[in-house]
Amino acid sequence: MPKAKAAKAPKEKKADDPNKSAPGAGKAEKKKETGLGLSTKRDEDFGAWYSQVVVAGDLIDYYDISGCYILKPWAYAQWEYLKEFFDREIKELEVENCYFPMFVSASRLEAEKDHIEDFAPEVAWVTRSGNTDLEVPIAVRPTSETVMYPHYAQWIRSHRDLPLRLNQWCNVVRWEFKHPTPFIRSREFLWQEGHTAYSSKAECDVEVRQILELYRRVYEEYLAVPVVPGKKSEKEKFAGGDYTTTVEAYVPGSGRGVQGATSHCLGQNFAKMFNIEYEDAKGGRSLVWQNSWGFTTRTLGVMYMVHGDDDGLVLPPKVAPVQAIVIPIPNSKLSDEAKQKMDEIATGMCKSLKAAGVRSKLDNRDNYTPGWKYNHWELKGVPMRVEFGARDLETGTCVIARRDTREKETVKIEDLTKRCSELCEQIQKDMFERARKIRDENIVSLTSWDGFIEALDAKKLIMTPWCNTKDSEELVKKKSTAESTGGAAKTLCIPFEQPALEAGTKCFITGEPATCWVLWGRSY
Amino acid sequence: MPKAKAAKAPKEKKADDPNKSAPGAGKAEKKKETGLGLSTKRDEDFGAWYSQVVVAGDLIDYYDISGCYILKPWAYAQWEYLKEFFDREIKELEVENCYFPMFVSASRLEAEKDHIEDFAPEVAWVTRSGNTDLEVPIAVRPTSETVMYPHYAQWIRSHRDLPLRLNQWCNVVRWEFKHPTPFIRSREFLWQEGHTAYSSKAECDVEVRQILELYRRVYEEYLAVPVVPGKKSEKEKFAGGDYTTTVEAYVPGSGRGVQGATSHCLGQNFAKMFNIEYEDAKGGRSLVWQNSWGFTTRTLGVMYMVHGDDDGLVLPPKVAPVQAIVIPIPNSKLSDEAKQKMDEIATGMCKSLKAAGVRSKLDNRDNYTPGWKYNHWELKGVPMRVEFGARDLETGTCVIARRDTREKETVKIEDLTKRCSELCEQIQKDMFERARKIRDENIVSLTSWDGFIEALDAKKLIMTPWCNTKDSEELVKKKSTAESTGGAAKTLCIPFEQPALEAGTKCFITGEPATCWVLWGRSY
Repeated sequence: MPKAKAAKAPKEKKADDPNKSAPGAGKAEKKKETGLGLSTKRDEDFGAWYSQVVVAGDLIDYYDISGCYILKPWAYAQWEYLKEFFDREIKELEVENCYFPMFVSASRLEAEKDHIEDFAPEVAWVTRSGNTDLEVPIAVRPTSETVMYPHYAQWIRSHRDLPLRLNQWCNVVRWEFKHPTPFIRSREFLWQEGHTAYSSKAECDVEVRQILELYRRVYEEYLAVPVVPGKKSEKEKFAGGDYTTTVEAYVPGSGRGVQGATSHCLGQNFAKMFNIEYEDAKGGRSLVWQNSWGFTTRTLGVMYMVHGDDDGLVLPPKVAPVQAIVIPIPNSKLSDEAKQKMDEIATGMCKSLKAAGVRSKLDNRDNYTPGWKYNHWELKGVPMRVEFGARDLETGTCVIARRDTREKETVKIEDLTKRCSELCEQIQKDMFERARKIRDENIVSLTSWDGFIEALDAKKLIMTPWCNTKDSEELVKKKSTAESTGGAAKTLCIPFEQPALEAGTKCFITGEPATCWVLWGRSY
Repeated sequence: MPKAKAAKAPKEKKADDPNKSAPGAGKAEKKKETGLGLSTKRDEDFGAWYSQVVVAGDLIDYYDISGCYILKPWAYAQWEYLKEFFDREIKELEVENCYFPMFVSASRLEAEKDHIEDFAPEVAWVTRSGNTDLEVPIAVRPTSETVMYPHYAQWIRSHRDLPLRLNQWCNVVRWEFKHPTPFIRSREFLWQEGHTAYSSKAECDVEVRQILELYRRVYEEYLAVPVVPGKKSEKEKFAGGDYTTTVEAYVPGSGRGVQGATSHCLGQNFAKMFNIEYEDAKGGRSLVWQNSWGFTTRTLGVMYMVHGDDDGLVLPPKVAPVQAIVIPIPNSKLSDEAKQKMDEIATGMCKSLKAAGVRSKLDNRDNYTPGWKYNHWELKGVPMRVEFGARDLETGTCVIARRDTREKETVKIEDLTKRCSELCEQIQKDMFERARKIRDENIVSLTSWDGFIEALDAKKLIMTPWCNTKDSEELVKKKSTAESTGGAAKTLCIPFEQPALEAGTKCFITGEPATCWVLWGRSY
């Protein structure tokens, strides 16, 4: 299943140990409590900023095992929104949920050579229970092709058993040793993995794209993150598969591309390996065609990276656990009676917001100042803040402050709910459009090597005409490593939406005839 | 978290390896395909029957690692119904979902002595990644107290941080070596675990019972399985906790009790161990009070055991993925036109059933006989079968056959939906009532040791007056082991609903003054 090819050492600080290199955890926590916000600016040190913001924004906590993170309720609720959407959509496609064991025997794990070659160095092995050594070590799944497919071979006998479409929501483990980054690259993560079998390649091709479209929607409609759908190069495709499709996002802060989610056509490779054969309508024997596809908690990390700013997270309304935080602001001159009335009205605001489907919360804690609260909910990225002060009490108004643009507007209390509903839509749309504009501005088009390194170092992604060969990709890797200290470039994808390729266009690096445009970048 | 105390070797056949002792898997699969149903009768060999029915009923598949099972979509969908209910209810109680890492370091795992003593022999250890030995082995969580609570100590600083109420849905591993049984006792299983912290014991006490009530509802309202809510004895309580409450079910086929789900008050024991302290309103320091509670995929196994019969599973409508299976029965005399009409009407039936919220499915496959289909859906436990034959086509009627009672009734097609909706309610109710009657008939009341073994061997649970001491429980264990080959009896719970205990009543086994009635039985 979707495995991000190991990126070469991004030059960001290691975000894993709050006591060492990472500035996150303890420090950021303290900042939050003292109301001072983040100590690092996003554009000064993106890696340090990120490792702070995920803690200060209440998303994760660091853990005493490197590369493992605690997903706190604020982050987990966001994951649940994505799950709900995707789960509903795949059920519409008649995919069924199931659960396969987390453990896999060595013999099965190692059945497919290309596949295991890619995963082997990262597999965690259980060798002992209590004080007893196991007779044979067992692996913790890094993905479930080899867990599931031996059973597909048993279950699929006739063409009537096809298609078989299963999905599971689970944890997987890839014990990578380099640069863990919360959400983006962790040793244990959560995902869904879909595994389907069909009687024809044509059906597989259709499903690969249907699922990719759902991944595009996860990013663009929910996370407000624009993505480029496309096909992976031979070098970057899923090990053991036929071809890989992907949605690729762009992180302006680091200038890197990031593989968002992948949908693979596995062809008949695993079917051969595990002997997944069926009797067709005419009584003959055929091998099935297979797909696998997955998206992970990485999705959330991409969103935090794309939208966050120096004051913390900025959450798109569709995945914000709280969309509107209501903060009454009594002052010392207010009578007790007026204070009580203020509280009542604020409570009523929340109620009617909730009734209208706007997730809202009242923060009327008396041990924090309004300033502290503003700061706190800004760090957490809540899309709208509703301020309700002493003057508002007189005028029957309140102020809505947008997290994304900092714009403030005064509205009548009776219009609050309607306006917040509108703003949920508006903010979602605006955040996506802004991110798209920035992303588009950071894709440059080059037809020769000239300017390639400059563009990379200026945090750009680069579109070039390409001959689509492994050697040329290796060449780009080598040259970019040699000519810049910022790390190698690789292909992100061959976008499905291709600019016109005029006859006679040459590959930007080899000079051979180009067959497509491809997107290059540094990558997570 | 809830750990079933290890039962002493039930005398059922090992259900784990379809090629060896277990009669399930391959064989049952074959039976199903040839339409012959189960080869073992429930009352002749309950263990063998169970290991067949879980495969023939399409719930699980055996796996090449002992004690691990594949949850197929038919079972997993049932788990999803339970999850939806429970998740919604705990969110109402302001519990938040989160996700903690699966791995735990030895130092944390072993911090609480009583706790780890109970779990240590069953802990799976990861010692290697790829070909590299880890510096320190790490454990796969058997439960998450020691994973979570060090962080509770960091997060909870003030009384304003309380209560803290977290839950996670995840997998856990307990590498038990004896008698794995699908759903009931497996090495990896799925569950939810709730972990809460309060400033007072009183709040804990309330929550323990609120959660237990939800567990009662899972069993009684969803699974149609009656349970006895009560308190565990000191011997049987959760290791490291203060007291444990439980819902106990009864499996007539084996005559055993089974711990359904547990809700623990942990007191301040873990708080002491992990130093979970907060500043109270007066500026003093206090330790928190804690609960933990969980239910697992075992719930499903209990349901299959309680309701299943010689023809397969019997599912209560509330957790049946298909509540009504519609089977058209064309015969050879029907014209093509009439056959087509039959199919159209049957399709319409499904549509209107679905529209009315009755989960239904059309089985109009032409490569299976109606008899085969009846058999197939009976094995899977579908509550209602709608038969629609050639004569029905003329009369505008169809026949509803109940899975639970085998009763058949003819209804007009236009009344089908309404009747099926009614029957969903009725079957659910009837199944529960029947199970309760059987359970009640199998609880005997004894005031002395006389007849205890006879009752056990007659598959009864036994209520006795009791002095509530560990020694007396040990004594019963010893005597029951000595006097019968059927295995030891243990306390299931001290039911919350207590019969009157007349003054001067003696403990049935020690003759000391009795302080309560307790429920004994053999147990899973």
